[in-house]
Amino acid sequence: MSQQERTEGDLRNTGLSLKHDRTWDYELDRIVDAVEERGAEKVGLQFPEGLKRRGPAVTDDLREALPDDVRVMMSGKPCYGACDLDTYLMRRTDVFVHFGHSPMKESEKIIYVPLFSNVDVTPIMQEALDELDGDDVGLVTTAQHMNKFEEMRTWLEERGYTVHTRRGDDRLTHEGQVLGCNYASADIDADQVLYVGGGKFHPLGLAMEHPEKNVVIADPVNNSISIADQEQFMKQRYASVHKAMDAEKWGVIFCTKIGQGRWEQANEIVENNDNAYLITMDEVTPDRLRNFDMDAFVNTGCPRITTDDGPRFHKPMLTPGEYEIAVGNKPLDELEFDTFHGTW
Amino acid sequence: MSQQERTEGDLRNTGLSLKHDRTWDYELDRIVDAVEERGAEKVGLQFPEGLKRRGPAVTDDLREALPDDVRVMMSGKPCYGACDLDTYLMRRTDVFVHFGHSPMKESEKIIYVPLFSNVDVTPIMQEALDELDGDDVGLVTTAQHMNKFEEMRTWLEERGYTVHTRRGDDRLTHEGQVLGCNYASADIDADQVLYVGGGKFHPLGLAMEHPEKNVVIADPVNNSISIADQEQFMKQRYASVHKAMDAEKWGVIFCTKIGQGRWEQANEIVENNDNAYLITMDEVTPDRLRNFDMDAFVNTGCPRITTDDGPRFHKPMLTPGEYEIAVGNKPLDELEFDTFHGTW
Repeated sequence: MSQQERTEGDLRNTGLSLKHDRTWDYELDRIVDAVEERGAEKVGLQFPEGLKRRGPAVTDDLREALPDDVRVMMSGKPCYGACDLDTYLMRRTDVFVHFGHSPMKESEKIIYVPLFSNVDVTPIMQEALDELDGDDVGLVTTAQHMNKFEEMRTWLEERGYTVHTRRGDDRLTHEGQVLGCNYASADIDADQVLYVGGGKFHPLGLAMEHPEKNVVIADPVNNSISIADQEQFMKQRYASVHKAMDAEKWGVIFCTKIGQGRWEQANEIVENNDNAYLITMDEVTPDRLRNFDMDAFVNTGCPRITTDDGPRFHKPMLTPGEYEIAVGNKPLDELEFDTFHGTW
Repeated sequence: MSQQERTEGDLRNTGLSLKHDRTWDYELDRIVDAVEERGAEKVGLQFPEGLKRRGPAVTDDLREALPDDVRVMMSGKPCYGACDLDTYLMRRTDVFVHFGHSPMKESEKIIYVPLFSNVDVTPIMQEALDELDGDDVGLVTTAQHMNKFEEMRTWLEERGYTVHTRRGDDRLTHEGQVLGCNYASADIDADQVLYVGGGKFHPLGLAMEHPEKNVVIADPVNNSISIADQEQFMKQRYASVHKAMDAEKWGVIFCTKIGQGRWEQANEIVENNDNAYLITMDEVTPDRLRNFDMDAFVNTGCPRITTDDGPRFHKPMLTPGEYEIAVGNKPLDELEFDTFHGTW
């Protein structure tokens, strides 16, 4: 069965009889095919945090479909994106399956299984129209709702809107897709952007990167409309930068996650500051940094840890751009959202 | 300067002028020599949790002694033993220095820098004599107090004791040394063992592995005498095993840390239990396992996470031996401490 024939998010035509009920399509046949083709003995599965509890059921179904001597294992490490592949498990398995995110880097070894939401998007889009001003509107969504993107666009066009969309850079797979760290798909010629998708994590990042645009959130999962308000975050950012201005000793974090490493940026900081120290780590958490005697930190890894979790750290945690402001290399009004473009 | 000429724990004769005061000897000259010999461009430093705050000062001293273009970086990952080398940092640096633990596996790439305590051990040993019964006594200590081991032995012998010591298995570097997971050096012909060293972590493990022996703790760091009481831990172990007897779904943890992997044990469990699922991870923490929908867990990694942190997990966490009891393969009275022998 080809990809095209499959109704996204619908298991009824996968041809597989499943031990467990599923509302989402885990593309087990594609995994089974790959295992057989490669004569794989070990299969690694990686789920994002919200899907880990489904891991055992997916494992059951795979074990039922695969020969007895194939060993299926799940990654127990936290996972928040395709930037965050479990490289240990990947190296030690013959087939490695990453669920729930769209591909960031293609490789023969990795099977990416996107998971699409079946939720109807048009009722909440109808409500969102009240918040739009004028006929030009940008449109973005996340990987989970990508299956409905053309439907969203057509629906808006039928109602007289000129819909501006864009495929972002190499880090993004699809036209109109946003990541928590990349909003290149919103670099469009419109003053307002309609985000259709679950949660506020993505549109808040968008609003931080594009403070000049009005970001309307149409959330079909929680059935709610709102305007992305980045003001609280920006206040926190300014406060952190101010606090860090007195810092002498800086911890410069180089993240070892495969899609989050910015070596040049980290290296440049320590090259130019005798009081800066390189710290390498995968998970960047408050308890791991508490043991280091530093006055402030610069995180060259995931920017969302800095902006969203910043206040949880015992010392100010800045993005590389904010660091430049704190040490006086740049003026305060150059403060902007730290975005990842094409890093791998 | 050779190793022999150095007074352990004393910096005054290292010939290095240090930017920071030190009470311990970080053997900077040995690191500097290795960097020069290998023409290293990147140097990785790994400290145990308790020493991480000294990392920046050690980095300063190294940077002062090394050419400007040598990049020094510290591991920000948690570290609790030589079983727990930061393999990412090791692979990506030309010289990798592991501080504070004795070598578990020798390699050209790794420099192990032991850190010895200068604390005087004889006053607390004098007090400990009141707790000893008879003239036969085993003697053990940790890597940090190894520099005083011969002094301890002689001191006891001078007072009429027959001192039983033993070099453990391959996992242990020194005669009389214990690890949190290995007490092979206490397999001696005496009913009592004197542990001279800081903290209760090691002697508690010893008492769990050798419940028939009286373990006297002489702690020169906290200046206290006590008898290792493993009863509370054993009660917790029995309680966990009992709770896990009703479990259907088992998460079987394979630890990916270089010195903590027991693949055969993990694999055997899933091979023989259709309701057991392999989970691979480095840090085994309650929050990482909370996302998995399991009734109980078996930890084939560090046994001290199971015995000491067990109650912090949301579901019963057992050692491989305890698992065999919980599923009925072994009788309850075979419950014993899970020890690591020669695993790497």
